[in-house]
Amino acid sequence: MANEWPREPLLPGLLNPPKQPKKESMVKRKKFFRSRSAPSVDRSLVPMDVVHDKFPGPQLRSGYFCPSFKKVALFLVIYLGAGVLCFYLVKDQLSGKKTNGVLDAIYFTIVTMTTVGYGDLVPNSTATKLLACAFVFTGMALVGMLLSRAADYLVEKQEVLLYKALHIREKDGEAHMMQHIETNKAKYKFYTAAMFLVQMVLIGTVFLWKVENLNLVDAFYCVCSTITTLGYGDKSFSTEEGRVFAIFWIVASTICMAQFFLYLAEIYSEQRQRRLAKWVLTRRMTYVDLEAADLDEDGAVGAAEFIIYKLKEMGKISEQDIAIVMEEFEDLDVDHSGKLTTSDLDVAQCDR
Amino acid sequence: MANEWPREPLLPGLLNPPKQPKKESMVKRKKFFRSRSAPSVDRSLVPMDVVHDKFPGPQLRSGYFCPSFKKVALFLVIYLGAGVLCFYLVKDQLSGKKTNGVLDAIYFTIVTMTTVGYGDLVPNSTATKLLACAFVFTGMALVGMLLSRAADYLVEKQEVLLYKALHIREKDGEAHMMQHIETNKAKYKFYTAAMFLVQMVLIGTVFLWKVENLNLVDAFYCVCSTITTLGYGDKSFSTEEGRVFAIFWIVASTICMAQFFLYLAEIYSEQRQRRLAKWVLTRRMTYVDLEAADLDEDGAVGAAEFIIYKLKEMGKISEQDIAIVMEEFEDLDVDHSGKLTTSDLDVAQCDR
Repeated sequence: MANEWPREPLLPGLLNPPKQPKKESMVKRKKFFRSRSAPSVDRSLVPMDVVHDKFPGPQLRSGYFCPSFKKVALFLVIYLGAGVLCFYLVKDQLSGKKTNGVLDAIYFTIVTMTTVGYGDLVPNSTATKLLACAFVFTGMALVGMLLSRAADYLVEKQEVLLYKALHIREKDGEAHMMQHIETNKAKYKFYTAAMFLVQMVLIGTVFLWKVENLNLVDAFYCVCSTITTLGYGDKSFSTEEGRVFAIFWIVASTICMAQFFLYLAEIYSEQRQRRLAKWVLTRRMTYVDLEAADLDEDGAVGAAEFIIYKLKEMGKISEQDIAIVMEEFEDLDVDHSGKLTTSDLDVAQCDR
Repeated sequence: MANEWPREPLLPGLLNPPKQPKKESMVKRKKFFRSRSAPSVDRSLVPMDVVHDKFPGPQLRSGYFCPSFKKVALFLVIYLGAGVLCFYLVKDQLSGKKTNGVLDAIYFTIVTMTTVGYGDLVPNSTATKLLACAFVFTGMALVGMLLSRAADYLVEKQEVLLYKALHIREKDGEAHMMQHIETNKAKYKFYTAAMFLVQMVLIGTVFLWKVENLNLVDAFYCVCSTITTLGYGDKSFSTEEGRVFAIFWIVASTICMAQFFLYLAEIYSEQRQRRLAKWVLTRRMTYVDLEAADLDEDGAVGAAEFIIYKLKEMGKISEQDIAIVMEEFEDLDVDHSGKLTTSDLDVAQCDR
């Protein structure tokens, strides 16, 4: 599928020498590079409360992930702490296969939080039943909204290693590699998640086979039942060592599985987006298009006008996006010339 | 939180008369409206294979949803058909509480597909265990990638009804209502999903209480355990009527729950996006910004240039987006004037 898309780098000249023979086009492209290198926000200027966790810009998100990552860990610790405390205090109101008080409380909290729900330990009083209901809802929210972001971060780090492993013989430069990964981001994320998933399945199966003494089919069946959060519960972790292992393995594998499907969906939507972009770009410009794209009504369409028109057609930007920026432009354009100049800025800044 | 954002409509003038006192600004705004009404793709020109299911443009998606909706139904029928056939044929290799052969096969398929996995019916042979593994993976993919889209479609339709119910006294026009919904899309989706979810919880609880003869706490506990796909399995649907009801109720409620969290995440990310947009727009333009935004290097920043610069700063468009459109612009700009005119189009179309 990806072959439909031009194989050459999408940003020629930035990383490789451009193959353009035309001189003029080179010059024009250069101007755009200058602008390209400029924006994306000067980080030092962004107020700290915007940067820390509120900053959604794609370029910045990964770089400023650390505070969010800490937040994830904090939430998880609070959640697990509360879960273990609650279920340890009511441990006599849980029935099923029991091992060690604290361990069972952690194990039950994890099995509930990830919605695996084996049912090998079940609440048997009104209070514990309602407690379990409260924990599964908050657990779902926690896993869905926070842990997946942590996983995303880890996967992105692993991508680079994966690419190196796959292209070990090719003597590509660092820059070329990063660019290749950027263009095929969703794909590499998907491969990395798939690789993790296979590892998780293997580790889980071997553990259940060797430590929990299940036969190989049952071990694999229990692994599948767990990572998909199905959790029939006819096979589960019943020994003390098994439950210690389960605590870590269940969290890692269920999140990995969820990310796997998420990246699959991402690849699918990216492919649709590319097909549309390709169609929009290869579609013939008509006179009607030309007139509609001519924002300043000077009878010709400049590069910036063309970019806005086409990106809007692709659905990347909306009328609302344009409208809110336009309002700001009109405020800044003090002399109403339709162009912002240094004199406009001087006047605007005196007013503020 | 939403109160931080200007309360007035973001597209004044389109639906309401603008309150702008400045004449010039009105004129300029008008020009942009013309462009606004123009693009977003003339649907009649889009090739059918692009429109049907491959069309991701936000404006088009809901309108062209029907073919995808049919596809969802088709996949679901095939999946359920295969599941029921397989599990009916091996019904002697399932152990647990049984009622009626075909009904149990459907019930088991649904409980597996949605990853609820009560464990009240479990496979007890190697073949059925592996079959269950295969069905849970495909079921997860099906639910995740297809049914949620169907739910999205239904929720969007319900939004309008919800808005009308909430604002029944206000004599707003149709246009104003649609605009209000558009601006607060994620919020209305979230409310609608929440409303559905409450209904599902009530219906499920009453059913389990009246028909399955559970007490009220157990009924609520079983409902929570099911909609979150936890499925401990100590309480489940064991009667024939119960399983008929469960088939429909489990599918509807688990998807509703998943959508509820999805919309919650959407609201959260929209709020972050708005906060960033607000910050980017209220940030002072510096001389450096002005130079960087000036794509055509004429010493002034036009409206289109300003829009691109700000939208890029907000992270709405990327360098790659700009680069691929620029390539097309350079191809079309035959006389390399930096502007597209009708003469460029004439030459370009003769070449093709």
